[in-house]
Parts: sequence; structure tokens; C-alpha cells
Amino acid sequence: MPEEHAEARAPVPPPGGELSPEAKRGVYEAIFGRRDVRSFRPDSVPEDVLARILAAAHHAPSVGFMQPWDFLLVKDLEARRRVKHLFDEVRRAEARLFDEPRRTKHLSMKLEGILDAPLNLCVTCDPTRGGSQVLGRGSIPETDVYSTCLAVQNLWLAARAEGVGVGWVSIVTNDGLREIFGIPSHVVLVAYLCVGYPEGGFLDEPMLQKNGWRDRLPLDSLVRHEAWSQPAFPEPG
Amino acid sequence: MPEEHAEARAPVPPPGGELSPEAKRGVYEAIFGRRDVRSFRPDSVPEDVLARILAAAHHAPSVGFMQPWDFLLVKDLEARRRVKHLFDEVRRAEARLFDEPRRTKHLSMKLEGILDAPLNLCVTCDPTRGGSQVLGRGSIPETDVYSTCLAVQNLWLAARAEGVGVGWVSIVTNDGLREIFGIPSHVVLVAYLCVGYPEGGFLDEPMLQKNGWRDRLPLDSLVRHEAWSQPAFPEPG
Repeated sequence: MPEEHAEARAPVPPPGGELSPEAKRGVYEAIFGRRDVRSFRPDSVPEDVLARILAAAHHAPSVGFMQPWDFLLVKDLEARRRVKHLFDEVRRAEARLFDEPRRTKHLSMKLEGILDAPLNLCVTCDPTRGGSQVLGRGSIPETDVYSTCLAVQNLWLAARAEGVGVGWVSIVTNDGLREIFGIPSHVVLVAYLCVGYPEGGFLDEPMLQKNGWRDRLPLDSLVRHEAWSQPAFPEPG
Repeated sequence: MPEEHAEARAPVPPPGGELSPEAKRGVYEAIFGRRDVRSFRPDSVPEDVLARILAAAHHAPSVGFMQPWDFLLVKDLEARRRVKHLFDEVRRAEARLFDEPRRTKHLSMKLEGILDAPLNLCVTCDPTRGGSQVLGRGSIPETDVYSTCLAVQNLWLAARAEGVGVGWVSIVTNDGLREIFGIPSHVVLVAYLCVGYPEGGFLDEPMLQKNGWRDRLPLDSLVRHEAWSQPAFPEPG
């Protein structure tokens, strides 16, 4: 059994299994350089690139290895116009909940690329996949939806590696999307994504940070030790 | 506006913004080589490695840039023993829901490394972070929890790059964990993770696949085009 806090006294060098320095740097470049992209060039994502990005999503972890995700690729302009209309309605309603000057700012920012992106992608979770009993899902049923989120993040990072931008459009309603795409009632809508090459490249920091909407929090303020009541850095004891 | 299905006819080479070939390969190595690890060596994860992994998690996308996550690091043996006891209880109950021979198989597999891993990590979501109105969360409130899942996957992939294994323990109850760690009722428990160097390295395929519990689904069967009712590969039309 490891002794408590042992690593603070005697760090052990990482054993085998880590990636090469170049490969490791690539992982962090993708993680730190990933952005929520809202402005896209119209040129399409080549099929081989899209196939790699979807394969990355499909290799996410999933509870009981149930792989509950489906990927609905949307290029049809009429369908995307309906989604954009839904977005516009929901955005107006949401903006009304903010006081000025945030309301005006909410309405002034470009928050989606539904029509400029060459591809939209709806990622769903089918809770019936693999039968009624799924190993590890018994006590926390929402782990199937959580697994689907992990697939979204794999997709997002693989896309970043490929130079492809992804933006998550949450200013919609799931009922609205369900009707537009004919998604069955038992299937959970998890993410509506815009996918394509970013117009003007990737921003150097998140757009909401750049625009002064909100700052990144200090990581130290989000780390706790041993119990919720111990939020302090450095290590207690 | 891009023409529908244009890329099937005229693939456009990726523009700038993609990572170098070595870096890109690293991203895919992490994604495809990541495993849910359940057997750990006792040696600790050095502080600098842990700091990078947590920073990776903190750079996940979040709805309205709300960064709703907290990271509770657990090394205390007594607390981990309580979690292990919770796991044992929940596992016995869950296994009873499976028919033979799956019940016996469920009970025979090593599904967690709560006590062998030098570090446990509880990742939570605080829906109150950033005030009552969060940009983009109005119509789909659960996007804060989804954001927290994205942070978990960033953490998981950064860990893989570092040679550090992560295992998600879902065979617990959130009420049980809440009590053990004193987590307030408004905070959502999202993931309970075991973190450390994998005993015997990373498996070449998921353990549940290796053990014949379930196979990986063909990706083609999970892709639909334009509407839910069009599940076919290759592209329609």
C-alpha cells in the first residue's frame, strides 16, 4: 500500500508507457490549442480526415464498453437553416435573462457557425445499446451520457490535431433538434457540433475570455485535498 | 455556402493550423492507446506530472467558459477503504442483476484500483459557478455536467501521454461518495477516478473486449447521414 503523500517526498521518475517527447507535446498542443470555433471557411473536411476524427470519437472510454454513441452528419442546407432558426429563437430568449450590458454583449458575439461550417454533427446517446443491464451503469445511469461526452472530447482534440475546428452549439433545444432530425424519443441528444476549417485560424485564447466575458479561473482554486472542506494549495500536512 | 456533399467530389487539402505529423501522431497514440486502468503500481505520480494532467483537465471546453469543475485529490487510506467498501457493496448488488454466466464473470474481473492506485480523484461539477445565468446553458442545463466530462477526458489523455493510467469507478453511489468526502448537496459528482502507473503497462485493447464481455462495434454502424432514418454508409445520393 502506498504511503500517504509519499510523492511529495520522493518523486519517482515515470516508468515506461509514456509517449515520446514529440508525441507528448502534440497531446498538450491539441489540449491547450483547442478552441470552440464559431467562424468557418466553406471548404469541406476531406473524407479521410473526417474518418480519423470519428474513429477517435469511437475510441472514447464507455461504461461497460457499451459505446452508446451515434454520429449524425448533417450537410443539408435546409436542415441547417432550421437549426439556425432554432438557435436564433433560443438565443433571443436566453439573452433576455441577462442584465445590461451583458444582454447586448450576448447578442453581439458570434456564437455558432451552423451555416458557414460545411458540416454539422449531432452526437447522441442510445441508453438501450447493449441491453438493459450494462456493467458499471447500474448505480449511476447517466454514465452512458457521460461516456458520449468523452467521445465528443476525443473528436474535438483529434480535429484540433488535424487543423479542423469544432464548435458546440448549446443554444438550441433538444426537442427542436429531435423534431428536425427525427431522433427517437429514447435517444438522448448530447451535442450539436459545427465542424470545418476555422476562418482566420484558431484563437490564442477562448473567445469569451478574449471578449472579456469571463476569465480563466486559477487552477489552484479548484483543487481540494482529501475532503471537500480542504481546498488549499499547497498540500496540507 | 458550401455545396452539399462537395467534399466527396473534391477533397480540399487541410490548410494551416494542423499539428506537425509527429504531434498529430501523438494525439492519436494517446486516444487509441488510452485504457481504463484497474491495476496500479504503488509508486506515486510526481507533482509536476500531476500538475500538467490537472492543467489539461482545466483547459477543457466549458459552456459559457464557466469552468464548473473541482478536483478532489484523495490519498488518505482510510477514505479509500470506505470507497472500496462502497464499491464492494454496489458491485454485489449490480452483479445480481446479471444472468449466469455473466454474473460470475462480473464478479471475477478486477474492475477498480481504489486501494492499489496511489491517488484517487473525485471530479465534481458546481452548477452555481459563475452565477445563475451562464451563457449557453439556458436551454440545456446539463451542459455544465457535460463540460466536466470533457475535462475528465482531457485529463485521461494527458495522463496516457505521461504514461499514467486512469480508471473510472462507476460502481459506487454518488450519495455514498458525497458522505465520505463531505461534498455539498448542490455539487454534482461526475467521476471517481483511480490514478497511477499501470501495473504491467497499458493493455493493447480494452479489458472488457479482451475478456470477451463485449466487442467494439463497427464505426460504420454508428454513423447516420442528414437524418436519423439514414444510417447507411457509404454516403447516400
